[in-house]
Amino acid sequence: MEKSHENEHPIKAFGWAARDTSGVLSPLNFSRRETGEKDVQFKVMHEFFGVVTEVGSKVEKFKIGDKVGVGCLVGSCRKCENCDNDLENYCPDMILTYNGVDTDGTTTYGGITTYSPLRYYRLDKPGMHIGVVGLGGLGHMAVKFAKVFGTKAIVISTYVSKKDEAIDRLGADSFLVSCDPDQMQAAMNILDGIIDTVSAVHPILPLLMLMKSHGKLVMVGAPEKPVELPVVPLLMGRKLVSGSCIGGMKETQEMLDFAANHNITPDIEVVPMDYVNTALERLLKSDVKYHFVLDIGNTLNKK
Amino acid sequence: MEKSHENEHPIKAFGWAARDTSGVLSPLNFSRRETGEKDVQFKVMHEFFGVVTEVGSKVEKFKIGDKVGVGCLVGSCRKCENCDNDLENYCPDMILTYNGVDTDGTTTYGGITTYSPLRYYRLDKPGMHIGVVGLGGLGHMAVKFAKVFGTKAIVISTYVSKKDEAIDRLGADSFLVSCDPDQMQAAMNILDGIIDTVSAVHPILPLLMLMKSHGKLVMVGAPEKPVELPVVPLLMGRKLVSGSCIGGMKETQEMLDFAANHNITPDIEVVPMDYVNTALERLLKSDVKYHFVLDIGNTLNKK
Repeated sequence: MEKSHENEHPIKAFGWAARDTSGVLSPLNFSRRETGEKDVQFKVMHEFFGVVTEVGSKVEKFKIGDKVGVGCLVGSCRKCENCDNDLENYCPDMILTYNGVDTDGTTTYGGITTYSPLRYYRLDKPGMHIGVVGLGGLGHMAVKFAKVFGTKAIVISTYVSKKDEAIDRLGADSFLVSCDPDQMQAAMNILDGIIDTVSAVHPILPLLMLMKSHGKLVMVGAPEKPVELPVVPLLMGRKLVSGSCIGGMKETQEMLDFAANHNITPDIEVVPMDYVNTALERLLKSDVKYHFVLDIGNTLNKK
Repeated sequence: MEKSHENEHPIKAFGWAARDTSGVLSPLNFSRRETGEKDVQFKVMHEFFGVVTEVGSKVEKFKIGDKVGVGCLVGSCRKCENCDNDLENYCPDMILTYNGVDTDGTTTYGGITTYSPLRYYRLDKPGMHIGVVGLGGLGHMAVKFAKVFGTKAIVISTYVSKKDEAIDRLGADSFLVSCDPDQMQAAMNILDGIIDTVSAVHPILPLLMLMKSHGKLVMVGAPEKPVELPVVPLLMGRKLVSGSCIGGMKETQEMLDFAANHNITPDIEVVPMDYVNTALERLLKSDVKYHFVLDIGNTLNKK
């Protein structure tokens, strides 16, 4: 949302934006380009879902009145090997919907971030034991997918206070307090894989020890600084540490269809537009179960 | 080779051993158990190859006069999931042939250490670009296998002096000096996978950057201390870092058959038994191309 673009385009739009380093959001008038022949214009109802109001002449998949959502990425080169393989999310020229890769808004909505690695790394086989590290926007979806895949979901968290929530609310099979050495010792060599959603730097060795040989630790949080990786445990158990970043368009649609068929929904707290700055403050304190969703349709009022 | 066992068993044996912290080897009389019904006894000719001299009553696979080799492991539980799957090398009760996992003697002989990950991680497809970090006992075998699989082999080393050796002697397709930023920059995003044979702590980020998305970095050296793992490059390219440790019995036989069919042999320097201490000194200086082999049959003389 660069200032120079605000008055360049013909279609008037209205939203909230942060325009200085304080990060505080406030109402903003801006403009968008004319609806192109391959574009769809829609009225945003919730963050990021809406109803189509106009379609370009070459659009075949949508008509006026359709409900549409916007995923984590809005563009890619369409020419590279990754794009050819429906992996636009690994295209070097990918355009993300939001500003960065490691904010909650970018990586969590809808669950593709955890669905994709569970599928790609074949951690979706009934009877497997899957660890989920961290119980936030990503972690709670990982638990839901793991359960529907028929795997056992073991939540691993530093907060013992999350145990009831994990087991009673989300249906996790068990809960490990990562800072309790006895619990961690007793759980050694039981997991087939781990989805690690923590975006702060944290110890990797205890997670490697929880996994059986050939276990797969997939990081979907993005610690800014490197983590310490002990190599001998990797060798001795042929374990792997990897990352995964959102999903491609095809896989995102597949995930949505799968979620709809199995009635998997994210737990959300719908808030009005003018609550956004409070929501951001609460996000910093992890005080949300598990996503805030802005009720734009009902509460974005032009002043 | 514990002292308490030296005179307990009926079969007399003779060898060289290090018996104090100096690490210097000297001749030693010791003893072994009676040949059991499932045992094979053989005369060692080279390190670790020999000719069968006696077979137990239940041995079906070998007869007197057969040539036999001893692999990297000599025992496992035979009951766990890994043993059931011909992965004795990941059995928690595996008994290694040598004393540890990260000495040259243990991990390099015959090439299973590099063959196994090239196969398991599917880095054996013609046309792929495979990096080999380090050009010692492990690295030179990785290059030989990679070439026979039909992949391009790119040797990555800190020593520019190894370039001719890599390309002219071993047939590598190209050579990258890892401390030359221009070369490393120019080679970004070209590799499908890397076999990293270096057993000292070393930077991982430059290796991750050499790989395409979905690239696989497999460590077969065993740095004692953790390496620094940057997470964002893992996420953005769905790259993985893993380890691999020797191979199971079935895969080791498969490797030997493959090597025999394709005339792949390790480059060795055969030395007499009384050269062993000099050989160990030269090993510490990486002064060998690429394995020492003790000529036990001709040079182990009982004093």
